[in-house]
Amino acid sequence: MLSINAHTRLCAVIGNPVEHSLSPAIHNAAFQKLGLNYVYLAFRVESLSGAVAGMRALGNLRGFSVTIPHKVSIIPLLDEIDPTARLIGSVNTIVVEQGKLIGSNTDASGALRALKEGRAMLKGQRVLMVGSGGAARAIAFALAMEPPPIRIEGLTILGILDDERRTLAADVRTKTSLRVEEGPMTDEALRETMRDSQVLIHCTPVGMHPKVKDSCVPAKFLEPHLTVMDIVYNPLDTQLLKDAKAAGCRTIRGIEMFLHQAIGQFELWTGQKAPADVMRAVLESSFSR
Amino acid sequence: MLSINAHTRLCAVIGNPVEHSLSPAIHNAAFQKLGLNYVYLAFRVESLSGAVAGMRALGNLRGFSVTIPHKVSIIPLLDEIDPTARLIGSVNTIVVEQGKLIGSNTDASGALRALKEGRAMLKGQRVLMVGSGGAARAIAFALAMEPPPIRIEGLTILGILDDERRTLAADVRTKTSLRVEEGPMTDEALRETMRDSQVLIHCTPVGMHPKVKDSCVPAKFLEPHLTVMDIVYNPLDTQLLKDAKAAGCRTIRGIEMFLHQAIGQFELWTGQKAPADVMRAVLESSFSR
Repeated sequence: MLSINAHTRLCAVIGNPVEHSLSPAIHNAAFQKLGLNYVYLAFRVESLSGAVAGMRALGNLRGFSVTIPHKVSIIPLLDEIDPTARLIGSVNTIVVEQGKLIGSNTDASGALRALKEGRAMLKGQRVLMVGSGGAARAIAFALAMEPPPIRIEGLTILGILDDERRTLAADVRTKTSLRVEEGPMTDEALRETMRDSQVLIHCTPVGMHPKVKDSCVPAKFLEPHLTVMDIVYNPLDTQLLKDAKAAGCRTIRGIEMFLHQAIGQFELWTGQKAPADVMRAVLESSFSR
Repeated sequence: MLSINAHTRLCAVIGNPVEHSLSPAIHNAAFQKLGLNYVYLAFRVESLSGAVAGMRALGNLRGFSVTIPHKVSIIPLLDEIDPTARLIGSVNTIVVEQGKLIGSNTDASGALRALKEGRAMLKGQRVLMVGSGGAARAIAFALAMEPPPIRIEGLTILGILDDERRTLAADVRTKTSLRVEEGPMTDEALRETMRDSQVLIHCTPVGMHPKVKDSCVPAKFLEPHLTVMDIVYNPLDTQLLKDAKAAGCRTIRGIEMFLHQAIGQFELWTGQKAPADVMRAVLESSFSR
């Protein structure tokens, strides 16, 4: 039985909606596994300024996961922002440290960790990113912030939203020294870029439950030299990942990115190494394959 | 195992300090007994306005226990105040109802309930209250707010702080129709009032751990016609209660008042009848006899 007392520390996800968040299940399982006196809840938040005032005033609050629609607008309300989170312009994690609110972005670090644990080679490689939304932005800056000796050679962004895609590419070029190309997501552009890239990261919602047969990457362009990561994690094995596996590619499931952003949060809040296997098991039990 | 998920509702005590609060243990045991999806934590709070902003903004917050030093100063920050709590001028309970903060005082209702469950006759009786602090104030108004057909005949307040005692007596006289007398706590006054009263309520901290041999009521004045309630609950059986039992009085332990204020809170937050036995057992296991 979980023993809660006057010293129990609270973490929570804030967003709107949060009712379907898996974060309480993952983090509570991890706290219990390590016997840490923490609980993790979910708070639907409309007034961000009120929520932030509460974070400062209510003792025993230790940390927050920040999700849609608050990841960008919370930044000016915090006391310190980690440099990568500041470049990305979005925060998914808050640590409450002696009344100070410190923002960081473990979507970015989690994506890198998922790629590395999935044995994707990054150093000197060319990466193709499909999509240019919030997740793409976090991953692009995570890749760009790696120190040059282990950094990728170049990034190509293909997407259907011209303004968003061009803005992301320009931001990464301006704020970092990474070589970035971009263009509309046509079959022709996909085919050519996939031939020249070693890593493909799919960052759009296409293929997510219930439209599980969809994929924006034609199966015929997938070749064994590619490592393919999908940010979609429901279902666990998307159509894209099935196609990639069938084509002989190395694959990394979206659940790994979700898992590693949660691990990053857990370790920031507790200072302890997260029990990854327990957390992965909770996630896997929540989705169909 | 307590299952916490995105729908779990949070209650907490706010005060300063709160590290030794028993409320988390009592309320969590009660939530678990009834299988309610709630947790109860303790938050040390310095900035009350920030805490209140957080209560409004963080979804899934359901209720708060308010303790020293915030019971009085929180009143202007709330949206609605129960009439008894407003008369007393202090709130120990907040219910968050669709974003509105509603304050009430279960110290008052809990004291009445402890007296009644302890089979103290109140209707038409004379009550002696020793002490004039916050607890005395809550109990005095609770007694005064009972409807006249079942109300006590009169209240005498004896205490050592002249200003506090006179203010309390004047407040009760002005705001209610209860007959109230007051005076300094001398042996002579105690002896005379105890002879004429049927109920004695001890509302000072005298006798609290570690000074467990102390009592401000001389044992020789205790007679079998008295029902004696002590607000001190650590130790469970104070010197006063031991003396009263030896003199043949009916006795009501402070733990019963503490228990019933918690029961009142639990029922306001959950709408369910509280499991009093489970809550009492948690309390009893926390103190020596």
